[in-house]
Amino acid sequence: MTDVRMAVIGVGRIGLTHAETVAHRTHGARLVAVTTSSAKRAAEVRRRCGDMAVYPTLDRLLEAGEVDAVVIASSTSAHVENVERCAAAGIHMLCEKPLALDLEGCDRAIAAAEAAGVKLMVGHMQRFDSGYVEAKRFIQAGAIGVPVIVRAISGDMDPPPASFADLSVSGGLLLDSMYHDFYLSRWLMVDEIVRVYTEAGALIDEGVRSVGDVDNAVVSARFAGGALGTMTASRVTRYGCDLRTEVIGDEGAVQVGYFRQTPVRLLDRKGVHHDTPQSTPDRMGEALVRELQAFVDCVRDDTDPPVSTEDARVTVAVSLAATRSIREGRPVDVEVGRPETMARRKSGLPCSDGGRQRRDKKV
Amino acid sequence: MTDVRMAVIGVGRIGLTHAETVAHRTHGARLVAVTTSSAKRAAEVRRRCGDMAVYPTLDRLLEAGEVDAVVIASSTSAHVENVERCAAAGIHMLCEKPLALDLEGCDRAIAAAEAAGVKLMVGHMQRFDSGYVEAKRFIQAGAIGVPVIVRAISGDMDPPPASFADLSVSGGLLLDSMYHDFYLSRWLMVDEIVRVYTEAGALIDEGVRSVGDVDNAVVSARFAGGALGTMTASRVTRYGCDLRTEVIGDEGAVQVGYFRQTPVRLLDRKGVHHDTPQSTPDRMGEALVRELQAFVDCVRDDTDPPVSTEDARVTVAVSLAATRSIREGRPVDVEVGRPETMARRKSGLPCSDGGRQRRDKKV
Amino acid sequence: MTDVRMAVIGVGRIGLTHAETVAHRTHGARLVAVTTSSAKRAAEVRRRCGDMAVYPTLDRLLEAGEVDAVVIASSTSAHVENVERCAAAGIHMLCEKPLALDLEGCDRAIAAAEAAGVKLMVGHMQRFDSGYVEAKRFIQAGAIGVPVIVRAISGDMDPPPASFADLSVSGGLLLDSMYHDFYLSRWLMVDEIVRVYTEAGALIDEGVRSVGDVDNAVVSARFAGGALGTMTASRVTRYGCDLRTEVIGDEGAVQVGYFRQTPVRLLDRKGVHHDTPQSTPDRMGEALVRELQAFVDCVRDDTDPPVSTEDARVTVAVSLAATRSIREGRPVDVEVGRPETMARRKSGLPCSDGGRQRRDKKV
Amino acid sequence: MTDVRMAVIGVGRIGLTHAETVAHRTHGARLVAVTTSSAKRAAEVRRRCGDMAVYPTLDRLLEAGEVDAVVIASSTSAHVENVERCAAAGIHMLCEKPLALDLEGCDRAIAAAEAAGVKLMVGHMQRFDSGYVEAKRFIQAGAIGVPVIVRAISGDMDPPPASFADLSVSGGLLLDSMYHDFYLSRWLMVDEIVRVYTEAGALIDEGVRSVGDVDNAVVSARFAGGALGTMTASRVTRYGCDLRTEVIGDEGAVQVGYFRQTPVRLLDRKGVHHDTPQSTPDRMGEALVRELQAFVDCVRDDTDPPVSTEDARVTVAVSLAATRSIREGRPVDVEVGRPETMARRKSGLPCSDGGRQRRDKKV
Repeated sequence: MTDVRMAVIGVGRIGLTHAETVAHRTHGARLVAVTTSSAKRAAEVRRRCGDMAVYPTLDRLLEAGEVDAVVIASSTSAHVENVERCAAAGIHMLCEKPLALDLEGCDRAIAAAEAAGVKLMVGHMQRFDSGYVEAKRFIQAGAIGVPVIVRAISGDMDPPPASFADLSVSGGLLLDSMYHDFYLSRWLMVDEIVRVYTEAGALIDEGVRSVGDVDNAVVSARFAGGALGTMTASRVTRYGCDLRTEVIGDEGAVQVGYFRQTPVRLLDRKGVHHDTPQSTPDRMGEALVRELQAFVDCVRDDTDPPVSTEDARVTVAVSLAATRSIREGRPVDVEVGRPETMARRKSGLPCSDGGRQRRDKKV
Repeated sequence: MTDVRMAVIGVGRIGLTHAETVAHRTHGARLVAVTTSSAKRAAEVRRRCGDMAVYPTLDRLLEAGEVDAVVIASSTSAHVENVERCAAAGIHMLCEKPLALDLEGCDRAIAAAEAAGVKLMVGHMQRFDSGYVEAKRFIQAGAIGVPVIVRAISGDMDPPPASFADLSVSGGLLLDSMYHDFYLSRWLMVDEIVRVYTEAGALIDEGVRSVGDVDNAVVSARFAGGALGTMTASRVTRYGCDLRTEVIGDEGAVQVGYFRQTPVRLLDRKGVHHDTPQSTPDRMGEALVRELQAFVDCVRDDTDPPVSTEDARVTVAVSLAATRSIREGRPVDVEVGRPETMARRKSGLPCSDGGRQRRDKKV
Repeated sequence: MTDVRMAVIGVGRIGLTHAETVAHRTHGARLVAVTTSSAKRAAEVRRRCGDMAVYPTLDRLLEAGEVDAVVIASSTSAHVENVERCAAAGIHMLCEKPLALDLEGCDRAIAAAEAAGVKLMVGHMQRFDSGYVEAKRFIQAGAIGVPVIVRAISGDMDPPPASFADLSVSGGLLLDSMYHDFYLSRWLMVDEIVRVYTEAGALIDEGVRSVGDVDNAVVSARFAGGALGTMTASRVTRYGCDLRTEVIGDEGAVQVGYFRQTPVRLLDRKGVHHDTPQSTPDRMGEALVRELQAFVDCVRDDTDPPVSTEDARVTVAVSLAATRSIREGRPVDVEVGRPETMARRKSGLPCSDGGRQRRDKKV
Repeated sequence: MTDVRMAVIGVGRIGLTHAETVAHRTHGARLVAVTTSSAKRAAEVRRRCGDMAVYPTLDRLLEAGEVDAVVIASSTSAHVENVERCAAAGIHMLCEKPLALDLEGCDRAIAAAEAAGVKLMVGHMQRFDSGYVEAKRFIQAGAIGVPVIVRAISGDMDPPPASFADLSVSGGLLLDSMYHDFYLSRWLMVDEIVRVYTEAGALIDEGVRSVGDVDNAVVSARFAGGALGTMTASRVTRYGCDLRTEVIGDEGAVQVGYFRQTPVRLLDRKGVHHDTPQSTPDRMGEALVRELQAFVDCVRDDTDPPVSTEDARVTVAVSLAATRSIREGRPVDVEVGRPETMARRKSGLPCSDGGRQRRDKKV
C-alpha cells in the first residue's frame, strides 16, 4: 500500500509538531505539504521536516490536489470551514480540538464529513498517552472499584497571546484547555457530565483579561451516575506543563502524570532538584506520535477513528456549559442539544460497556 | 514551674491519641485524668498511657477539681456544653475541631472562655505539620508569587459509623473533614473564602446515606481577593489517609503531602510497591505532638493560642455555607453573621499582614 | 514495676539525643543522671531534658549508686573501660557502636557483662528503623527470592573534627560509619561477610588526613554463601544524611531510604525542589526511640537484648578487616579470632534460620 | 545532500532496534539492507522496518556495494573482522560496544578504520541519554564540586543465553554489561580508572555458570586522581532494566536514572504501585535515536564521531582488568598497553579539560 500523502493546515506551535511527527515518526504516511503565509515559517518547517510543498492558503493546497489526508491545526474559529472544504475535496481529516466553537459548528463539520464519506478524527491527544491508557486499563479491570471522583488539572506555563485568547478565536480557557479534562474525565469515568459550575477569573494576565477571557478556573462537575469531578485550568503554572488526572474509586485510585522530565536529580546543600516537562510535546511527545499513527492507520485500513465525532461534540457541549456558568454565576446543565439523537449521544461515550459495570454496583 | 495537670474528655480514636501524646510526648504537662464510661476503654487507656484517674462523666472530673487544662475530644455536638462547663471551672481548653455545629454555638463557646479568662484553642492540627509550616513559609517568602489557586483533598480510608456521620452529631462530611481544607486554604492563601459551591453525594456508604450525610464532595471556592479554590473530601480513599494541598501562584507552586510512609520500596516483576499513611496519626503524628505542646506552652506562658477562636469560627461558617450549597443546589455566599465585628473577623485570618502583600500585586 | 533509673555517659551529639529520648520518649525509664565535665553542656542538657544529676566522671556517677542502667555514649576508645566499670557495679548497658576498637576489647567487654550478669546491648540503631524492619520482613517472606547483592551507603554531611577522626579514638571511617552497613548487610543477607577489599582516601578533608583517617571509602564484600556486597562511606554528602541500603535477590529487590524529609515540594521556573534529612536524628529519630525502648524493655522484662554482643563483635571484625585492607592494598579475610566459638559465631547472625532458606536454593 | 544508505549487520535484539531506528527515527539516513541467515527474522525485520535488502552474510552485503555506512550489531567476537572488512570496503561504521574482546583486537579495528579513512564510532549509548547528558553538564558546571565517588549499577532482568554469555563470544558480564559503567564513570569523573578489584559469582544461572561466566559482580575502582568508584552488574534485576549512576562530589551529587516508566500510579489497599523500564529500549529509547543520529551526522558532515576509538579501547582495558581480577583474586592495575601512546591515551578521556578543573582543587 502506498503511503498516505499528508498536509498540515496551519504550522503554529502544535502544527509544526504535527508536521515533524508526520515527516519523521509516522509509518505509512508522508508529509507532502503545509500551509503558511509566512516565508520565514516555511523555511523553519523545511529545516525541521525536510522538503515539501508550501501553500499560502488551503485553497491553493486543495487546488494542487495531491493530498489524501490533512491535519487541521489552524485557529479553532477556522476549523469548521476547513473541515467543510477538505471534506468536499474528499480528504480525510485529523482536526485539532475543539472541533468548533459551538455545537452548531460541530454539527456542520460532522455532517460535512459524513456526507463526503471521509474520516474525521478530533485530536484527543492524551488518550494516546501511555499513562492515561494504563489508567483506563486499570479502571476497566476493576482495580479501583467504582469511580467516584475525578480530579484533573491542565496547566500551561504562560498565558497565550491576547489574539489567541480571544473568545471568538479560541473559545477561551475552558474550551481551549479544560476541554482536555472534560474528555478525559468522561472517558475514564465512563459516564456523562450533566452539570457544571465554574469559578474563574482573569487573575494575572492583562492580555487575557482585555479580550474577556480568564486565566484560571476551577469547575465542579456532576456525572449522570452521581459521580463527582473537579477540574482546574491555569495559564500560569510556571513550573511546567502540568497535566495530571486522578480517579478515586471505592477500592483504590489511579494517578496519571508526574513532575519529572529528565531522569536526573541534582542534590546539594539546598536540597534535591529536578526538572519538569516544559511543554505539551515534552510531556505528550509519544502520545502525539501514537495519535497521528492511529489516524494514519484508520485511513489506510478504512476503519473508524478511535475518537468519535460525537465524543468531540459532547465535550464541546460540556466546555460551553462551563463557560456559560462563569457568565451566569450558577451551575449549568449540560445541553447536548439534539434530543432526537439521545441514542447516538450515548455512543459519544468512549466506552459504552462501562455503563453495565456501573449499574451492577451501588452507585 | 509545675507541670500542667491535664485531662482528656472523650477517649475515642483521636482522644486516645491525644491522651498518649500528653502522657508521653509533651513537656510540662501530665495526664492526670480521662473521662469514659467504658471500663474496657479505661483499661486500654491505662495500658497505653500509664495510670491516671478515670471519670465516667465530665461532671465528676470537674468535681474532683485537680485539672488545669483539658483536651475536648468528645463528639462535636457536645463541644459547646463541654467548653461552657470547663470554662466555668476555670480550666483551659484545647477543643477538637470544629468548635461547634453552628455559629451560635461558636459564639457561646468563645464568650464562655472570654468571660472566664481561660485559653480556648481549636485543633487545627495540620497547621503544625512540618510540610504545611514550610509551605506557609515559602508562600510568605514570595517563592510562588501571588497565590491564585488552591487545590486540596482530605481522604479517609473508611466511612465513619452512621452514628457519627449523623449531621446532628458531627455536622457531616463538610464540617467534619473538609473543614481542614477550608482553614488550611484560608491560612495559606491569606484570604477569606467568600463563596462556595458543592457537588456531593452518598455514593458508596449506606450508613452515611441513611443519616442524611454524604461520603464524597467537591467544592469550588472563591476568595475575597479573586483567587480560586477546589476542595475534595472523600470517605473512601482506601489507599490511605490522603491529606494533600497544593497552592499555585503566578511564580510557582507548593505541594504538601505525598504517598509514602515507611522508607522502603519493594521491587519485583510486577513493578515497584510502597505503602501510604493509613491514618491521621501515621501522617500527622508529629503535628499532633506539636499542637499539644503549643497549647501547653501557651497555658504555661500565658500567651495567646496560635489558633484564634475567630479563625475557628470563620471556618465553621465556610463549612456551613458549603453544606447549605448541597441542599440548595447553588453557590452560597459565606455569612460570618456578626457584621458589628467585621474588624475582628479580619483578625480571623491567621496571618493578617499577608493582605498587604497581596494588595501590592496585581490580583 | 518502678521505672528504670537511667544515666547517659557522655553527652556529645548522640549522647544528648539519647538523653532527650530517655527523658521524653521512653516508657518505663527515667533520666536521673548524665556525666559531663562541662558546666555549659550540663546546662544545655538540663534545658532540653529537665532536671537531673550531673556528674563530672563515671566514677562519681557510680559512687552515687542510684542508677539501674546506662547509655554509654562516650568516645569509642573509652567504651571497654566504661563497660567494665558499669558491669562491675551491676548496671545494665546500652553501648553505642562500635563496642570496642578491637576484638580483644570486645571480648573484655562481653566477658565483663557476662560475669556480672548484666545486659549489654550495642547500638545497632538502623535495625529499629521502620524501613529496615520492613525490608527484613520482605526478605524473610521470600518477596525478593535469594539475596545476591547488597548495596549500601552511609553518608555524613561533614567530616568529624580531627580529634574524633583519630584512629585511636574512633577507629576511623570504616569502624565508625561503614560499621552500620556491615551489620545491616549481615542482618539483611542472613549471611556472614568473609572477605573485604577497600579503596579509600583522605580526598577532601585536611583534618581527617592529618590524623591518618580517610574521608571516603568503597568496600567490596563477599559473603560465606557467595553473595556480594558493595558499601560506600563518605564524610562529604553535603546534600544530607545519606543512609541507604538495597538488597537485590533473584526475584526482586528492596530499597531502604529516600531523599525526602519535610512533606512539601516547591515548584518554580527552575524545577522542583525538596529537602533531605540533615542529620541522623532527622532520618533515624523514631529508630533511636525504638532502640532505647527495646533496651528498657529487656531490662524490665529480663530478656535478651535484640542485638547480641556476638553480632556486634563480628561487625567489629569485619570493620577491622576492611580497615586493614586499606593499609595492605589487598582483599582481607575476616578473622573472627575465636575458632573455639565457631558455634557461637554462627549465632552472631541476627537471624539464624535464614541459613536453611538459603541452603534450599541454588546459591 | 542525499541520504546515507545504511545497513545493520546482525539483527538480534539490539540490531533490530537499530534497524527500526534507522528506518523510522533518523534524519538523513535510509535503511537499505540487513544481514541475517534466518528467513523468519528477515520477515520480522521487514514487518517492522519496511522493505529492504536482506543478505545472508556480510560478504554478500559488501558485494552488492550499495551501502555507505553500517551498524555492526553482530556478536562481540565478530566485531573486529566485521570492522576490518567494512573498512576495506570504505564503509563508515557504528560498532556496538565493546569494540573487541581484547586490546589487540581494538588496535586492529582502529588501525583498519584509520587506514581506510572511514569513521568508526563505538556505541556508548548512555552518553546520549538526556539524564546522563544533564549530569555531565551539572558536573562540568561545578554544581557538585570535585567528584569523589561514583556509584553505578547495570542490571538486566534475565541472564543471557549460555551461547551468548560464553566468554569467547561476549567477553562475559564485565565486558558486556559493566562496560557501560566503566565508560560512564570515566566520562563523568573526567578521570582514568587505574585499579580495579572484582568480587563476582555465577550465583543464580546454570547456563552462565556452565560457560564460565558470572551473573553478578561488584567492582571497586580507583581513579588516577584518587577518586573512588563502585560498580555493580547483575543479570537478575527482575524488577526491570536497572541503569543508574550517581556521582558524589564535595559540594553535592547527581543521580541518574529512576524506577518509573509509564506515568501512572495505582493506589489500593496494598499500597502504591508503578512499573519500571523492562528493557534497554524502554529506558534508553531516545538515547539510541540520538546516538544513531550523531553517527549519521558525523558521516554526512565529515566530522569526528563524538565517541573516540581511544575512549572505547581504554574502556575495554578496564573491563579486562576487572575480569582478570576475578581469576586472580586481587586488585589489578589497568594496563592500556601502548606506553608509546600515553599522549593519545590521555585523549581517550572524553573531556580532557576537566583535568585542569581537578588540578585546581585539593583532590
